[in-house]
Amino acid sequence: MNKVNLKDKFNLFNEYWSPKIVGELNDSHIKLAKFKGDFVWHKHDNEDELFFIVKGKLLIKLRDQDIHLAEGEFVIIPKGIEHCPIAEDEVHVMLIEPKTTVNTGNVENDLTKKDLGRI
Amino acid sequence: MNKVNLKDKFNLFNEYWSPKIVGELNDSHIKLAKFKGDFVWHKHDNEDELFFIVKGKLLIKLRDQDIHLAEGEFVIIPKGIEHCPIAEDEVHVMLIEPKTTVNTGNVENDLTKKDLGRI
Repeated sequence: MNKVNLKDKFNLFNEYWSPKIVGELNDSHIKLAKFKGDFVWHKHDNEDELFFIVKGKLLIKLRDQDIHLAEGEFVIIPKGIEHCPIAEDEVHVMLIEPKTTVNTGNVENDLTKKDLGRI
Repeated sequence: MNKVNLKDKFNLFNEYWSPKIVGELNDSHIKLAKFKGDFVWHKHDNEDELFFIVKGKLLIKLRDQDIHLAEGEFVIIPKGIEHCPIAEDEVHVMLIEPKTTVNTGNVENDLTKKDLGRI
């Protein structure tokens, strides 16, 4: 049973929008990701998704609301809610979501990542 | 849909060993707790439990291993594994675990908290 140091893990990769699995518990994965730029509007029909900001700032656009997140803050996007993450500058994010979750949800495009790496 | 700022939430309570619910997603709760002193040896028969250190240091004793956690680190204690958290000084912890989880697991004593508050 090994502990996970977030900073150490973030030093292991540089790609944006490519979540890495760093832990699993019950039916969920803990993932780390670096974001920069605009993602894609999408929703997860069956999964609630938590975004926790480890470093930097993240805007999550909803159809009726903007959520501005800073370091030490999280938000939970409920299943079925369309959202679009936007990072003006690089941001380091911890995601908590069911193992079934695909990063682009109901959309499949160049940003879609399956078979995520484990670090 | 509201974001959660961990520091703001930790300012709302002072009790030790009394987790507060700050979010729910899928079948899990996100809880915040302040620990100080020794807890009790226990296990959760059906729930994996994640301890993420927001501030301070935490020792989690297992029967065959000591896990020393500092700020920005987490560990997942799998279901069925006996553990005992020990905080020499005050530590602020974020817990992620199924909604069914009772803080003292298979043990019921003065430290057992049911009907946790939501903050």
